[in-house]
Amino acid sequence: MPRFKLTIEYAGTRYSGWQVQKNARTVAGEILAAAGKAAGGRPLELYGSGRTDAGVHALAQVAHLDLDTTMRPDALRYALNDALPADIHVLALERVSHRFHARRSAQARSYLYQVARRRTAFLKPFVWWIKDPLDAERMRRAAPLFRGLHDFRSFTQDDPEEKSTEVQVEALEIADAGDLILLRIRGSHFVWKMVRRVVGVLAEVGRGALAVGDVSRFLREGSNAPARFTAPPSGLFLERVFYEGDRRDWPLAPALDPARGASAKVEP
Amino acid sequence: MPRFKLTIEYAGTRYSGWQVQKNARTVAGEILAAAGKAAGGRPLELYGSGRTDAGVHALAQVAHLDLDTTMRPDALRYALNDALPADIHVLALERVSHRFHARRSAQARSYLYQVARRRTAFLKPFVWWIKDPLDAERMRRAAPLFRGLHDFRSFTQDDPEEKSTEVQVEALEIADAGDLILLRIRGSHFVWKMVRRVVGVLAEVGRGALAVGDVSRFLREGSNAPARFTAPPSGLFLERVFYEGDRRDWPLAPALDPARGASAKVEP
Repeated sequence: MPRFKLTIEYAGTRYSGWQVQKNARTVAGEILAAAGKAAGGRPLELYGSGRTDAGVHALAQVAHLDLDTTMRPDALRYALNDALPADIHVLALERVSHRFHARRSAQARSYLYQVARRRTAFLKPFVWWIKDPLDAERMRRAAPLFRGLHDFRSFTQDDPEEKSTEVQVEALEIADAGDLILLRIRGSHFVWKMVRRVVGVLAEVGRGALAVGDVSRFLREGSNAPARFTAPPSGLFLERVFYEGDRRDWPLAPALDPARGASAKVEP
Repeated sequence: MPRFKLTIEYAGTRYSGWQVQKNARTVAGEILAAAGKAAGGRPLELYGSGRTDAGVHALAQVAHLDLDTTMRPDALRYALNDALPADIHVLALERVSHRFHARRSAQARSYLYQVARRRTAFLKPFVWWIKDPLDAERMRRAAPLFRGLHDFRSFTQDDPEEKSTEVQVEALEIADAGDLILLRIRGSHFVWKMVRRVVGVLAEVGRGALAVGDVSRFLREGSNAPARFTAPPSGLFLERVFYEGDRRDWPLAPALDPARGASAKVEP
């Protein structure tokens, strides 16, 4: 049975996350249903590079799909998109070998978080609007503390599927983009709620409510404090999943920047 | 009674247009209701620079409001935004003299239209997705035909409030922005449905279904053809309204570009 690699963008607002659940609308559930329609209703398996929580978006989630079909990748992609709701879109689809596994073959992931400095009529589902003034420079000074290998137990929630809370953070960037502050974190993998708690803690630093020293302490010893600063899902995007040979120096840009498509060289 | 000039952005998707209507949710209706709450329920009058149709958005609609209040402009703006739904936002509010009239004092308006070259999970309410390949260069060659003073009777629909169908088009620009083609038209004023029909006709030119000569003919003699090519409201944004002293050379950028806020120097 052929295996396909799918690159998918979705607005997570209407979904109970990526992972298939009974009695809940999920992104993977919608893709499976669309694949059933496109290729004739056979049972299918779909593996994502990782889960995203309810309300979290993706600019380029990657999944693999084993599907008993003779359709060519282009035709399959069009048929999938025709069958999918408007807020889920398959950007690219290619045939891959069975050695490729969306989760196990992934070498790194990056997440983008959008903080809005002002109320906005258009972007509410895609940002976290913080009313208080934020000192982005202060946030940038705290950012390097997260880089490298750390125990993120203060930043996660018990997850039976995770054995270790040690995570290698490769990069954490903070950039000003007009009305937005963009935060991007890249790592080998992430533990549950970690990105939203790192962002939440950095926002408190930007507000002046936490000191850079508090951040060091959360990384050095266990603390329940970061859980109180969990950033909302609306601002969070799974940005990219990196496999062998993929370049990791992706330009940092707002999530809905239409030039992203050009740089990502997605199929039309 | 003091007069205030309001600059407003809104996502038109959920509204039956700008103008107040009985038994329909409109943008002006929401602002009047919010002003009633913010300033204590007195009857109010609100004048927009012009109407926008159902589903059409605004990046900077301008209106004036006569309101019996002693509130300072800043406090009034915050109170209005607190009372408004998330998809309507007052960007700026200032006290003006009674000589200022949002419609009569306006010297020009510009509209931005977003055509998407691809299906997109995030932008559906804010674009017109055209599946066929578009030749933007062909569209750019037809654009200058619209500039100057023309009778746009082929591009409008009977409107009892309009006496003349002659319109002075100051500029018509077409730009590539990654996945989007941006069209921007600036003129003294516009007649009903004109912008959407100009865009629709240019899209047919880009598709190769109409020749540049067809466009000249529509402008020279009456034709029912442009009505068949009315572009959908989703892609249309009232971009700016120009008053005496306002610069007209505004950078052309996608509607949801967060850097717009910076260039517009809106209040935080």
